[in-house]
Amino acid sequence: MVNETQHTCSASSSSKSDGGSSSGSESSKDSSRCSTPVLDADRHERLREKMRRRQDSGDKWFSLEFFPPRTANAAVNLISRFDRMGAGGPLFVDVTWHPAGDPGSDKETSSMIIANTAVNYCGLETILHMTCCNQTKDEITGHLQKAKRLGLKNIMALRGDPVGEEWEEEVDGFNYAVDLVKHIRNEFDDYFDICVAGYPKGHPEAESYEADLRHLKEKVFAGADSFLKFMKDCQAIGITCPIIPGIFPIQGYHSLRQLVKLSKLEVPQEIKDVIEPIKDNDAAIRNYGVELAVSMCRELLDSGMVHGLHFYTLNREVATTEVLKRLGIWKEDPRRPLPWAVSAHPKRRVEDVRPIFWASRPKSYIYRTQEWDDFPNGRWGNSSSPAFGELKDYYLFYLKSKSPREELLKMWGEELTGEESVFEVFTCYITGEPNKNGHKVTCMPWNDDPLATETNLLKEQLEKVNRRGILTINSQPNINGKPSTDPIVGWGPSGGYVFQKAYLEFFTSSEIVTALLKVLKKYELRVNYHIVNVKGQNITNAPDLQPNAVTWGIFPGREIIQPTVVDPVSFLSWKDEAFALWIEQWAKLYEEESPSRMIIQYIHDNYYLVNLVDNDFPLENCLWQVVDDTFELLN
Amino acid sequence: MVNETQHTCSASSSSKSDGGSSSGSESSKDSSRCSTPVLDADRHERLREKMRRRQDSGDKWFSLEFFPPRTANAAVNLISRFDRMGAGGPLFVDVTWHPAGDPGSDKETSSMIIANTAVNYCGLETILHMTCCNQTKDEITGHLQKAKRLGLKNIMALRGDPVGEEWEEEVDGFNYAVDLVKHIRNEFDDYFDICVAGYPKGHPEAESYEADLRHLKEKVFAGADSFLKFMKDCQAIGITCPIIPGIFPIQGYHSLRQLVKLSKLEVPQEIKDVIEPIKDNDAAIRNYGVELAVSMCRELLDSGMVHGLHFYTLNREVATTEVLKRLGIWKEDPRRPLPWAVSAHPKRRVEDVRPIFWASRPKSYIYRTQEWDDFPNGRWGNSSSPAFGELKDYYLFYLKSKSPREELLKMWGEELTGEESVFEVFTCYITGEPNKNGHKVTCMPWNDDPLATETNLLKEQLEKVNRRGILTINSQPNINGKPSTDPIVGWGPSGGYVFQKAYLEFFTSSEIVTALLKVLKKYELRVNYHIVNVKGQNITNAPDLQPNAVTWGIFPGREIIQPTVVDPVSFLSWKDEAFALWIEQWAKLYEEESPSRMIIQYIHDNYYLVNLVDNDFPLENCLWQVVDDTFELLN
Repeated sequence: MVNETQHTCSASSSSKSDGGSSSGSESSKDSSRCSTPVLDADRHERLREKMRRRQDSGDKWFSLEFFPPRTANAAVNLISRFDRMGAGGPLFVDVTWHPAGDPGSDKETSSMIIANTAVNYCGLETILHMTCCNQTKDEITGHLQKAKRLGLKNIMALRGDPVGEEWEEEVDGFNYAVDLVKHIRNEFDDYFDICVAGYPKGHPEAESYEADLRHLKEKVFAGADSFLKFMKDCQAIGITCPIIPGIFPIQGYHSLRQLVKLSKLEVPQEIKDVIEPIKDNDAAIRNYGVELAVSMCRELLDSGMVHGLHFYTLNREVATTEVLKRLGIWKEDPRRPLPWAVSAHPKRRVEDVRPIFWASRPKSYIYRTQEWDDFPNGRWGNSSSPAFGELKDYYLFYLKSKSPREELLKMWGEELTGEESVFEVFTCYITGEPNKNGHKVTCMPWNDDPLATETNLLKEQLEKVNRRGILTINSQPNINGKPSTDPIVGWGPSGGYVFQKAYLEFFTSSEIVTALLKVLKKYELRVNYHIVNVKGQNITNAPDLQPNAVTWGIFPGREIIQPTVVDPVSFLSWKDEAFALWIEQWAKLYEEESPSRMIIQYIHDNYYLVNLVDNDFPLENCLWQVVDDTFELLN
Repeated sequence: MVNETQHTCSASSSSKSDGGSSSGSESSKDSSRCSTPVLDADRHERLREKMRRRQDSGDKWFSLEFFPPRTANAAVNLISRFDRMGAGGPLFVDVTWHPAGDPGSDKETSSMIIANTAVNYCGLETILHMTCCNQTKDEITGHLQKAKRLGLKNIMALRGDPVGEEWEEEVDGFNYAVDLVKHIRNEFDDYFDICVAGYPKGHPEAESYEADLRHLKEKVFAGADSFLKFMKDCQAIGITCPIIPGIFPIQGYHSLRQLVKLSKLEVPQEIKDVIEPIKDNDAAIRNYGVELAVSMCRELLDSGMVHGLHFYTLNREVATTEVLKRLGIWKEDPRRPLPWAVSAHPKRRVEDVRPIFWASRPKSYIYRTQEWDDFPNGRWGNSSSPAFGELKDYYLFYLKSKSPREELLKMWGEELTGEESVFEVFTCYITGEPNKNGHKVTCMPWNDDPLATETNLLKEQLEKVNRRGILTINSQPNINGKPSTDPIVGWGPSGGYVFQKAYLEFFTSSEIVTALLKVLKKYELRVNYHIVNVKGQNITNAPDLQPNAVTWGIFPGREIIQPTVVDPVSFLSWKDEAFALWIEQWAKLYEEESPSRMIIQYIHDNYYLVNLVDNDFPLENCLWQVVDDTFELLN
C-alpha cells in the first residue's frame, strides 16, 4: 500500500528586512555572494531554491524521513545510515518530532540533536518537524531559537496529535499548524523554510475533504512565496507551492497495521488480499511492498505533475533504497565537492580549508570547532589559531567507537603481550588480513572505518613500516595534477586538476624518533616534520608557524582551492585528541593494572606523534625512503 | 676625494605602547605575525632590523642618496633610475630635503613625493631627510604625519643650513637635529626609524671635534635602541648604534668644487695634484674618482668595523654603480618575491594578489589602489570588489609615458593611414624590428618598457596575430610546474614550483569578436573570456563574478600563493584605463580633426577589449588555436 500523504513546502515571499533579527537578509546576502568556489549551488541555496532548480531542470528528486531513535546505540546506527543513504543524493532528510520523547532536549536521541547531527556532521539538508499543540509560545520560540543556533534552516510545522481521545481547542493556544507557521514568520521573519502537511484522503479529524483543503490553503498562505505548479484540486483553490507525495513502502505486516491505526486510512481490498496469506513472510511482504511502491511512484512521476518523492523510511534502509534504485533516482555522485565531507550548517558554508589531522575523524573536527565564529575560506592563514574546543567536553556519543567492547577486544586483542602485539593490530588493520585469533581489524581508535581507497594505494609500504613499529594513523600519496574527476583522488568541479603532497602521520618510539631526526637532516626543507609527545615536547623544522597546504585543486574560472593543510598550531590540539584515544578507546578495554592496559599506557606516555610532508610533490614520494633510512640507521 | 661623513641610524628602544597613536604597536604586531609567505624577512623588517641582520650575517651592504629633481621630466628620469639602481640591491635609498624647494608639498618634484614614489612604486626602503630650523612645531608635525600616511617609515633628522651667514639660536625653536629627534619620539613614539648625521672631520660650524661628537651622542641618545659596534671614538664616549660612512665618488671637477664649498672640507694635496691637470676631461676625472672610491671603500670594509657604505649619487648612475660592482656588493638578485614588484608601503605588506591587467602598469595599479584599507592576502576573493581610484585623478606625472612627444610620433607614426598602420605599430613593438621609417617601437601606451622576457616566449605567435588586427597588450604562456628558481618565470622562495594558465589580452574589431565568439563556443569552459567595449557592454562565459587564478606557486612548508588573477570586477576598472590610453597617449599626439587622430578615435570607440584564459594549463596552450580558428572562420 502506498499512502499518498502530501507535504507542501511553503516559504514567505516577503522580502522585508527585519531590523531586529537580521537573519533573513544575512542569509540572502550570503547566497548572492557565493564565496566558496566549489559546487556552489548545492552548498548555498535554500531548500526552496534547490527544489525549484530541480523542478526547472526536470531533474526528479527524493527525500527521506526518519524518526528519532530510542537508545544511544540506535542513534549511532542511525547516523551511519544517514551517511549511507545520504550517498544516494536525497534533496533533504527530515526528522520527526514526538512531544512525549523530549524532542527539543540535548539528549543524544532527541529530534533536535538527531537533526543537528544530520546537518552538521553528515552534511545533509535537513527539515526538523515541530508540533505546536499543548505548548506555550515561549517553549516553541525556545525550540526554534535552538534550531537556528544549531544551523537548522527548515521546519515542518505540524499541529501534533491530541493528548486525549478528542481534540479540544485552546483559547490563545496553538490549535492548528497554521498558528505555528504564523508564529515562525512573526518571530523569525524569512529565516526558516517552512513545510506543512496535507491529506489527500482527508485528515482523520477533518469534517470533510473540502474543509481539509481549506486548512491546507490557510497554512500555505501564512507564509507563501513559491508559485509553482500544483495538483489540480489545490490549483483550483489557489495553492501553488511545491507539493510532494509521501511514499510509505510496505515493509512488514505489523508496521502497516500500525500505520493504518494511526492514519485511519483504509487499505484497499486488493492489497489486503495479497498480504494476508504471506503475513509471516517478511521478505515476501517487503518484495511486494517494493513492487507496489515502484509502480505507484512511476505513475506519479510519469504524470508530469510530481517532481519529487518523499519516503517514510521507518529508519530502515533496504526497501527505500531498493525502490529508489529501481526508479533510477538514487544517484551516487562520486564527485566530492571537497576532499572531506562538507557540513550543511549555514555558518560553515564558506569553510573550505581544514587541517589534515582530522581526515578520519571529521565529526570530531566539526564538534571541536562548533563554537568558531568564522570558518577559514580560501586559506587557513597563520593568524588563525582559534581555540579548538576543549578535549574534556568532547566525548559525545557520536564520537565514540561504533563497535561494542567485545568486538573491539576481538580486533585489538583480548590480551596484549608487548608493544609488538600493538604493532600487529596496526598491521592487520592495514592489510585487511585477520589477526592471529582470526578476527579482521576493521577499525582503529583513530579510524572508525576501514582503510580509505586512497590509502590503499600505499598499502604495501604501510604494512612494512607498521610491522616495525611506525604505527601509521593517517597518510596520503603525492598527486601531481590528476583530473578532478579521478574516481579515487578527485574532488571539486569537473575540468580541474588536483594535487597533493605526500603525507605520513604515525606514533613511534623515542628510539626511532632519534634515528629519524638524524635521517631527516639530509632531506633539509624537502621534508617538513612535526614531532610531539603527550607532554607537548615539540620538534619541528618548520621555519615559523605557517600552515603547509598538502591538498589543492586548480579549476576553470576560479581561484585555487587548498582544502587541507598541515597546520602546526592545530597539530597541538590534535595531539591531545590523538593521545587520548589510546587511553579512552583502547587502554580502558582492559582491567586497571592489567598488563594489557599498562602496555597501552606505556605507549601513550612514551611514544611520539610524528607527521611528515614531502614538499616535492612532482617527484617520487621520498617519505618511504626516509623511513627505510631510519630503520637502516637503527640496524 | 672621498668625503667620509657619517650617518648614524638610531631608534628608540622604548617598547611602551602609546594608547593615542597605535602605530608603534601595530607595526610590531605586523612583523611578528608575518602573514605574507614570500621572502618574508625582507618585506617585514624595519630598517634597523634589516641593518642588524645584515651586520650579524657579515653581509656587506650599501645605500644610495638622491636629491629631489627640479623638473617633472627629471623626476620621471629619476624614477627610472630608482628602478635600475634598485636592481643592485641597496639596503635603502634616501631623499634629501631642501627647505627652499617646498620639500613637503604635493608637487611632483618635492622631497616628499619623490620619497613616496621610491617606497610605493619602486618598492625601495626609503629614508626621507627632514630639516627643522626655521620651522614651527606644527609645520614639522604636519610633514611627519604626511610622511607616515604615505608609508614612509624612516627619517633622517637634520638641523638644516643657516638662512644667513651665521647661525642664530631661536628660543623654543628647533636649533639642533636633537630637537627634531626628540619631537619625533614625543609625537610618533616608535613609528619612525631615525637617522642622524655625524662629521668625522668636524661640522663646519662646530667649535671642536669633541663638541661635535658630544652633539652626535645627544642626537643618538634622544632615541637609541641599537647596541651595535661603533667606531673607536664613538665607542669611547658610548655611541653604540650602526654608523655608516658616506662615500662621495668624485664625478667631475665642478661637483667636487661645489661640495668643498658647502662642506668646508679641504681636498688633500695629492688629490689636487692629480685632478688639476685633467680638470677638463670628465671621463678621466670620473675614472680617477672611481679608483679612489674603490680603494677607500675596500679599506673601510677590510677594517671589519664598517658593514655598510652610503653613496652620494648626485642623482647620477655610472660612477656609483661602477664602484659598487668593483667592490662586489652590487648584487642583482634574479629572485622575485612575487611575479610583480612589491610595494614597500607598510600597509601593503600583506598584499600578495593582484589582477593581471596591470602587469605592465604596476605604478598605475598602486596609484589606483592607494586608498584601499586592506590589501588582499592569500586570495583575491569574490567579495572584494573595492572601488578602484577614479580615472579622473589619475594622470599623475609618473603614470605618463616617459618618452617625449617627438619620439612617440617617430615610434607610433607621424601620420596614420588606417587601422593597418596601427596594426603595424603593434607588430613592430612585438618583433623589435624598426618600423617603415626606421624607428624601433620600444614602448606602447599600455607598456612603458620593451617586451618582457617571458612574453618573448610567445613572440612568433604574437607577431602573427597582431599583423592581422588582434592587438595584444598583455599575455603569458602556460607553465606547468617549473622550479621557482627558473630565471624567466620563477618567483618566490627556492624549492617551490610555479604554474600559470595561458593568458591573452587584446583589442580587436567587432567583426573579429563576432567570429571569435562563434569559435569560443566549442571550447566551452576550457577557455574563459571577458569581452567589453568602451561603453561597458560586457560578454563573458564566467559563471559568476569569481576571479580566476592564473599564476600560482607551491612552496615548502607554506600555503599556496596565487599572486595574479583575472578578476571580472576589476577588469571593468582596467577597461576604463585601457581605452583611455588610446586617447590620452596616442590620439592626442595628433591635431584635432586630423585623420590620424580620427583613426585612433575610431578604434577607441569601436574596438573591443578581450581577455582569454586557457584553464587547461597542463596541455598545450589552445589560445593560438582559438585565434587561428577565428581567422579561418573570417576567410
